[in-house]
Amino acid sequence: MAPQYAPSMRSRLAPILLLVQIIFIALFACYFEIDSQKRARDGTAFNTFYPEFQDVNVMVILGFGFLGTFLVRYGFSSTGFNLLVAVMAVQWALILNGLESWYYNGKIVINLRSFVYAEMCAVPALISIGTVLGKMNPVHLILIAIFEVSGFVLNVWLLHIITKTPLFNGIMLLHIYGAFFGLMLTWLLYRQGSEQPFEKEKISRNSGVFSMLGTLFLWMFWPSFNSVLVDNYPHGRKLEAVCSTYLSLAVSAATAAAVSVASSPKGKLNLVQIQSSILAGGVAIGVAMPVVHKPWEAMTLGFLAAVLSTTGYKYLKSHMVVVFQCHDTCSILSTHGLPGLLGWMAQFLLLKDFDDHTTAIRFAVFHITSLFITLSVSLSTGIITGILLRWRFWRPPQDRKCFDDQAFWEPHQAYKPVDTGRIRFVFTCLLKA
Amino acid sequence: MAPQYAPSMRSRLAPILLLVQIIFIALFACYFEIDSQKRARDGTAFNTFYPEFQDVNVMVILGFGFLGTFLVRYGFSSTGFNLLVAVMAVQWALILNGLESWYYNGKIVINLRSFVYAEMCAVPALISIGTVLGKMNPVHLILIAIFEVSGFVLNVWLLHIITKTPLFNGIMLLHIYGAFFGLMLTWLLYRQGSEQPFEKEKISRNSGVFSMLGTLFLWMFWPSFNSVLVDNYPHGRKLEAVCSTYLSLAVSAATAAAVSVASSPKGKLNLVQIQSSILAGGVAIGVAMPVVHKPWEAMTLGFLAAVLSTTGYKYLKSHMVVVFQCHDTCSILSTHGLPGLLGWMAQFLLLKDFDDHTTAIRFAVFHITSLFITLSVSLSTGIITGILLRWRFWRPPQDRKCFDDQAFWEPHQAYKPVDTGRIRFVFTCLLKA
Amino acid sequence: MAPQYAPSMRSRLAPILLLVQIIFIALFACYFEIDSQKRARDGTAFNTFYPEFQDVNVMVILGFGFLGTFLVRYGFSSTGFNLLVAVMAVQWALILNGLESWYYNGKIVINLRSFVYAEMCAVPALISIGTVLGKMNPVHLILIAIFEVSGFVLNVWLLHIITKTPLFNGIMLLHIYGAFFGLMLTWLLYRQGSEQPFEKEKISRNSGVFSMLGTLFLWMFWPSFNSVLVDNYPHGRKLEAVCSTYLSLAVSAATAAAVSVASSPKGKLNLVQIQSSILAGGVAIGVAMPVVHKPWEAMTLGFLAAVLSTTGYKYLKSHMVVVFQCHDTCSILSTHGLPGLLGWMAQFLLLKDFDDHTTAIRFAVFHITSLFITLSVSLSTGIITGILLRWRFWRPPQDRKCFDDQAFWEPHQAYKPVDTGRIRFVFTCLLKA
Repeated sequence: MAPQYAPSMRSRLAPILLLVQIIFIALFACYFEIDSQKRARDGTAFNTFYPEFQDVNVMVILGFGFLGTFLVRYGFSSTGFNLLVAVMAVQWALILNGLESWYYNGKIVINLRSFVYAEMCAVPALISIGTVLGKMNPVHLILIAIFEVSGFVLNVWLLHIITKTPLFNGIMLLHIYGAFFGLMLTWLLYRQGSEQPFEKEKISRNSGVFSMLGTLFLWMFWPSFNSVLVDNYPHGRKLEAVCSTYLSLAVSAATAAAVSVASSPKGKLNLVQIQSSILAGGVAIGVAMPVVHKPWEAMTLGFLAAVLSTTGYKYLKSHMVVVFQCHDTCSILSTHGLPGLLGWMAQFLLLKDFDDHTTAIRFAVFHITSLFITLSVSLSTGIITGILLRWRFWRPPQDRKCFDDQAFWEPHQAYKPVDTGRIRFVFTCLLKA
Repeated sequence: MAPQYAPSMRSRLAPILLLVQIIFIALFACYFEIDSQKRARDGTAFNTFYPEFQDVNVMVILGFGFLGTFLVRYGFSSTGFNLLVAVMAVQWALILNGLESWYYNGKIVINLRSFVYAEMCAVPALISIGTVLGKMNPVHLILIAIFEVSGFVLNVWLLHIITKTPLFNGIMLLHIYGAFFGLMLTWLLYRQGSEQPFEKEKISRNSGVFSMLGTLFLWMFWPSFNSVLVDNYPHGRKLEAVCSTYLSLAVSAATAAAVSVASSPKGKLNLVQIQSSILAGGVAIGVAMPVVHKPWEAMTLGFLAAVLSTTGYKYLKSHMVVVFQCHDTCSILSTHGLPGLLGWMAQFLLLKDFDDHTTAIRFAVFHITSLFITLSVSLSTGIITGILLRWRFWRPPQDRKCFDDQAFWEPHQAYKPVDTGRIRFVFTCLLKA
Repeated sequence: MAPQYAPSMRSRLAPILLLVQIIFIALFACYFEIDSQKRARDGTAFNTFYPEFQDVNVMVILGFGFLGTFLVRYGFSSTGFNLLVAVMAVQWALILNGLESWYYNGKIVINLRSFVYAEMCAVPALISIGTVLGKMNPVHLILIAIFEVSGFVLNVWLLHIITKTPLFNGIMLLHIYGAFFGLMLTWLLYRQGSEQPFEKEKISRNSGVFSMLGTLFLWMFWPSFNSVLVDNYPHGRKLEAVCSTYLSLAVSAATAAAVSVASSPKGKLNLVQIQSSILAGGVAIGVAMPVVHKPWEAMTLGFLAAVLSTTGYKYLKSHMVVVFQCHDTCSILSTHGLPGLLGWMAQFLLLKDFDDHTTAIRFAVFHITSLFITLSVSLSTGIITGILLRWRFWRPPQDRKCFDDQAFWEPHQAYKPVDTGRIRFVFTCLLKA
């Protein structure tokens, strides 16, 4: 049988990417300006904000990129496509987040805080592509980025309008949004035969260490992720956010190791399971942040999140494939979905300072509504995107090229040898002329 | 002969880890609070302190974790167990460091500075496990973390009480404390036959680059490590600490390369030797920091530390095995022990501004006493821990599973295929019911 | 045929490195002091400046070091020699940058800003060694560092004297300076037979991910690189520098992917090409920084830089070898040279606010002169250095040892087994005596 080449991306990726990029530049040319005032009043003073922005930037570009390198033959794609999705999503998020300002003022003024918002809005897309990692081509991923960011910005706006959710709380629902969006994608794009792992869907000694690198960067800078948008002025809330996240992550890491060993018949640790679960504490505490004030609350949340995530990875991942036809490569449901829901539920238990019953009921209604809206927007935009991506026009990789860099990257040569004679000839002619 | 499986950690690691973690959460629940005041007076203002905290965090979690990945088959364990030890040690150090406040106030208030202290107290444990890297199981490592942090906090307290050593100077003796604690461990846990290198105790092309990554992170952020606890207000001491450390490290790096080539018969560089020695300057300057004020002093110290460390690696490491039965995997004696002692001695030579002989003698007595206390506490707690760990109850890995991830980590599968038929059956039953 | 060993570096590297290092220490001992005043007036306040310094430090030590690890057998050398060159270049730059102060005051006072300047002056050397990566020994590289830093400091000084170029603008020409210096080197040190790629001049699955790590660190922290020396006080220029660089890099990344796919017959991406080109936007915007004020200008510049760099990589690299005998390993001409020239040209088009024609012509003359001076100094110092390095005295590696760690690094053993009997005997004798 003749070898089957992967379908070329040349006629799809290049025009779409160039077109979208040129549209973005045109929009920026018409409406965008860089903030020219040194504004100290709202805590955006450049020098104090910049290091936290860089921490978030490292998480988005490097952390999520290397998290996916555990697949033995997918290192180039994991890191490269993550960068591609991140830059498209950030530019699109900058535009969408500026719509309101554009509507009222006719122009959009950006500063460092705009970039942090935009990177936050890009994160759901990076989470979702974890569910379909290895099974999509870059054109798919760019479409996911565009649609998912649109849906997420819509969601934050809806939450703000309907349930009066503060911006920060709305953005922190990104874990839930991203996880369920991704599940819809992977469900609609299910490939027959995924009940058995793909041939190349495994880790190796080196690819495991690469993904450990990504995991550790996420782990270390997660306190910045959870605190960067917290306003510091009343009562040192920023310190609270950092300490809570750190403690929650620390407990997560220890608990994930314990549960991983306990749930293995041979008493061994599972690297991919642990990498998912040590981050669960950061997810849960991020969602529950507004009500967590004591260290032990953060630690207990980290403990429960790790237990939930580890057992979820152990038992849910393979069953999701068989029962729901959701082949979730990076186990996003256990890493972001379940701990996110746990954090949402924790807000019921930990919020105590109600004046009366009416306020409590009012809070409960608003809180349940906000989850309901998020899930609705997430599932519906996920379904729309999934249906669009099923179109064969986008040339999905064949099953046997899944989880393989070879489908998208040139073989490993530093540069191509050239036809020496021909060039010398041309050059000599030129010199003579 | 039937294959011998490594002893399972299931019945040891999981219960111990969960038990210790739950005790920690309980202690935090009873006594801990997050500092709710924005305290600017003592330099702990959040925004200026946070970036340095993150640098130290990167060193502790990523730097030390990747430093040990040079072993070809031990990448998962080096990074994973380092994280495990770090999170347990930090939580325990937070508790122990708060004992005094608990005694007087009945509660412990933590802020960012507490976390930096706690991470500093966790470093000796991360240094010590370098001596036994590859020969212990995670239960051993957690016990080491608990005992070593206790000993180190006791040591800093004793130095403070007996010799009036300032907190910063006491903490910087962590290199000496960690190195000698580790040597006691590896001496008591000596395995017969270690005169010849273990089968898997070697580096590979990729594992060498991974450990270079860890080394570079330690190298780059070492100025933050040495300056984070320095109080900036009188005379810009913080700048002095940063500049001195940077220059010392730079000279170390160049000198280590020169000595490594000069001491090799074939004139080649040795990667592991260089990785140890380029950090020696940071260790020496850290210990000698209070008396180093001129750039050339820092540079000379870096030069001597690198020479000492490189020759120590070359000649001491293999002789230590044969003569003292100390098999020191990461050559901690040369990396932290000897440069630490050099830094200690430098304080004699560089401290000049004595008013009279009495002060000088008084300083000398106190200075020698502080080393004597540190060595005593280090060696005795090391011996106690070592004896405890010799107990076969902890199920040490067999000699042939040393330096091998296989003893602790599941084989390289992304997820386990499930019995499809059975699940479908159960699910169909559920739907019918 | 007997195996040919690589020539030993023992008699060259060790003495040169030690000699230079001791001279540096002596110079520091005579003339250097650490700034002892907390100077807030010129924006060097420690706390706000330190995080940006660390970002630049990470780029210099880790980013450039890992950028070169794409060569499959050259990971130890890429990272290790980069560190060696960086530390020598930084020390030498500290000395040269202090000459003026030494001339007037007799001493040189250093602070954090001095280190940032010095690291900036070291960058051209790190760029240039990219052109000869894999074909030089460390002695060559140290000589390159010394000569290139001298030339670059001279160039910045000349620009300052002759064309009144502000310090920042002069330093940002480092990309052009480094690229053309490197081209001269690789032209003069051309090896016969380089028309065909060397046997080991290729990438592998893991080495590609390592170099992706370096690329991402450069990409993420490039905004710090371009903004660290910008003075913030008038009109928030620092924010402008950060936002422009970020947007330019984002557009570069997307464009590089599109052009790479479009220019490949099979429609595949080329990893090394993309790694070069996603950074092109940062180079161009760095050079054009003083005139870029609007987001779309930065984005267009990033777009053009990526197109130029990608096509340059595709068509120039192999033709340069054949036509000009320039074998440019890391494709420095496309990564730094062409985008740097583009940034220089952008200043003509984007600078609009001239009062009259005289000012415009004056600017044009000065601007062209500054490029002319930079190219002259770069090419002439490059030729001088190249001729010096052709001397066989420095023992260049043989062709068959090019791109191979084996020529410089000991084989992969953790430590050497020792003659047990002999040591035991000596030790027993000592004990008896």
